[in-house]
Amino acid sequence: MRVTAISSVGDEKSQILDALARAVRRSDFVIVSGGLGPTADDITTEVAAEFFALPLVLDEVFLDTIQGSLEKWGLPWIEGYRKLAYVPQGAELIAPTSACGFLLHYDNVPVFFLPGVPAEVRQIAENRVLPTLIDKNVEHIVVRQRLFKLFGPQEAQIGESLDGVARGEPDVTVGFYPNFPENHVSVTVRAKTAAEADRILAKVEAEVERRLGEFVVAKDASSLEESVGGLLIEKGLTVAVAESCTGGLISQLLTSIPGSSNYFDRGMVVYSNRAKMEQLGIPARVLEEHGAVSAPTARLMAQGVRSLAAADIGIASTGIAGPSGGSDEKPVGTVFIAMAGPEGVKVRKYKFSGRRDQITVITAHTALSWLYKYLTDRSFLSGPEAS
Amino acid sequence: MRVTAISSVGDEKSQILDALARAVRRSDFVIVSGGLGPTADDITTEVAAEFFALPLVLDEVFLDTIQGSLEKWGLPWIEGYRKLAYVPQGAELIAPTSACGFLLHYDNVPVFFLPGVPAEVRQIAENRVLPTLIDKNVEHIVVRQRLFKLFGPQEAQIGESLDGVARGEPDVTVGFYPNFPENHVSVTVRAKTAAEADRILAKVEAEVERRLGEFVVAKDASSLEESVGGLLIEKGLTVAVAESCTGGLISQLLTSIPGSSNYFDRGMVVYSNRAKMEQLGIPARVLEEHGAVSAPTARLMAQGVRSLAAADIGIASTGIAGPSGGSDEKPVGTVFIAMAGPEGVKVRKYKFSGRRDQITVITAHTALSWLYKYLTDRSFLSGPEAS
Repeated sequence: MRVTAISSVGDEKSQILDALARAVRRSDFVIVSGGLGPTADDITTEVAAEFFALPLVLDEVFLDTIQGSLEKWGLPWIEGYRKLAYVPQGAELIAPTSACGFLLHYDNVPVFFLPGVPAEVRQIAENRVLPTLIDKNVEHIVVRQRLFKLFGPQEAQIGESLDGVARGEPDVTVGFYPNFPENHVSVTVRAKTAAEADRILAKVEAEVERRLGEFVVAKDASSLEESVGGLLIEKGLTVAVAESCTGGLISQLLTSIPGSSNYFDRGMVVYSNRAKMEQLGIPARVLEEHGAVSAPTARLMAQGVRSLAAADIGIASTGIAGPSGGSDEKPVGTVFIAMAGPEGVKVRKYKFSGRRDQITVITAHTALSWLYKYLTDRSFLSGPEAS
Repeated sequence: MRVTAISSVGDEKSQILDALARAVRRSDFVIVSGGLGPTADDITTEVAAEFFALPLVLDEVFLDTIQGSLEKWGLPWIEGYRKLAYVPQGAELIAPTSACGFLLHYDNVPVFFLPGVPAEVRQIAENRVLPTLIDKNVEHIVVRQRLFKLFGPQEAQIGESLDGVARGEPDVTVGFYPNFPENHVSVTVRAKTAAEADRILAKVEAEVERRLGEFVVAKDASSLEESVGGLLIEKGLTVAVAESCTGGLISQLLTSIPGSSNYFDRGMVVYSNRAKMEQLGIPARVLEEHGAVSAPTARLMAQGVRSLAAADIGIASTGIAGPSGGSDEKPVGTVFIAMAGPEGVKVRKYKFSGRRDQITVITAHTALSWLYKYLTDRSFLSGPEAS
């Protein structure tokens, strides 16, 4: 099966009816999302009932569920919630959460109506929609996909490096997706059997790794911070963070992973010069001579927080995120990243471009990519740029 | 004008041709986005040329621009970039950034082809697409919109509170959009003149404020953190942050605003008990007796960081973001927020629900909403929950 079309329409009856008519005509499987909520602009249920020529009936069991949830969370009953429990007669109700999804059939075409809240869509999709979709897969085509998340090279460089990566494999599709600050590459394999699909995917995956493996920081649903967290736990190492221009983002990414207390003890957001001196003992002299955005300051931040937290690794960022604060010598986007570990200290100057939020994100991502590189190869901290 | 349909199709020629044919038939104005990149899967330009029956020609000027940009950023030339400079003959090129957008006309219908990268789409839309759209607006209808960002009440409560808010104004549309952890409400007014639209919008806005003003934390493109940052600068106050379960997110949000160094000096991510003791002087006795997730710990964190940074306000979070670490007494989602200021200290226990990332986000947002409330009404820190 392939996704052949995605249509978005407003909360207007005629548009929804049109979209439903087109969808059931051209597809074997339809998923509708949104418009099931309690407010007056949510009209999908009502329009679905009209499209399928079914009356709306009150589902007492679901009404009880709603009332139970409200009580559990200590929220007041509101008349608008009653609307949620009216569903087209005969519809199969699905995993009722805050809004109730339901399933109807148009001839042989299943039409799923799901809430619009992304977390709920994801949950219902996994538990209820995908199993039905797999059952309906009459072609018996096996699809395997791997998503490579690359950090560093430009999209065009990646495209060039992967030219002909699936040569001789007609049922492989390679897709390229910029996903700031990463670039993602998907490899999709279609085959008659699972064994065949797995074999082809493994072959193409090995080729992608051979050509661009050094830039791959995560795969599939995983993220760079998950890769880093997993490696820190696996190796029993700890990290401490001293941040200036990233303002807490590096710490936040490192602690976003369940179990992060195993490797993360503390982070310091030392935004002002005073905070850098008081919290990390950076000498006033260094800040005066070299500035807060400098290699010596970054180095002392990484060493200082490593020592303070008695961590294996200290990582630090200091830079000018803009829009103001830049100078000819140190324009907006000038960033120093430093890492201190048992093997030594490494500092590097970057010149990033973009808006304030982009510079912040790319700086934090670069810092995490340093951790990732170090955790996969300790010589990262004793290479030519280290001291 | 209204947006009547949004279609998403894959990078497949027949699908793109179909979508273009449908779009020009049913619309007065068409915007296409994506598929203009340098990799082989980007085929929109080629398909556009076929649809409009135009040859692809090399634009030497744009080719020079690409080469100049690469040199400026110190990136290597890659053959894939040449593809970017081939555009349908006679197309008007638009604000070339990394990929070149272009404009063609189908009879009287402008069809804009834009890159897929959101930041580039936004820029081109503002500079080039919207002005054309306004010129084409032959109905001479003036549209005004205000977006209210509410934090606190459930969507259904908001719907009930705003029932009939635009009564007697037939050309006003009210939309409700859950936008975790906020709920957004849009008010759209259509009128014959700007004065009329402004008058009606002001009237409905005043009514929304009267009913739900206490929950409005930002409007239009602004955010809660911008509201807080603006108020801190306006009032000349400073804030320091001590975070446990939010892992740096509160600091990151506060420093995401340009000029944040005026009000933010430092933040401490004190994740472990040792960090809480060493950085903020929380007595071991308090951690043993009450636990790290407790009102006394939260209170001492807020007071400690306020004093350490000599800030006007100290704000702290400590909680169990999960998925593990919960107990019967303190289940996952148990969070304490504390704020210390000249008027006193306030602590409150919350029980949030959701995944780890949701609990983190809602905790940070709640902490910011405390700052917002305090900055708009100082009695927030001397109310019944304060001490």
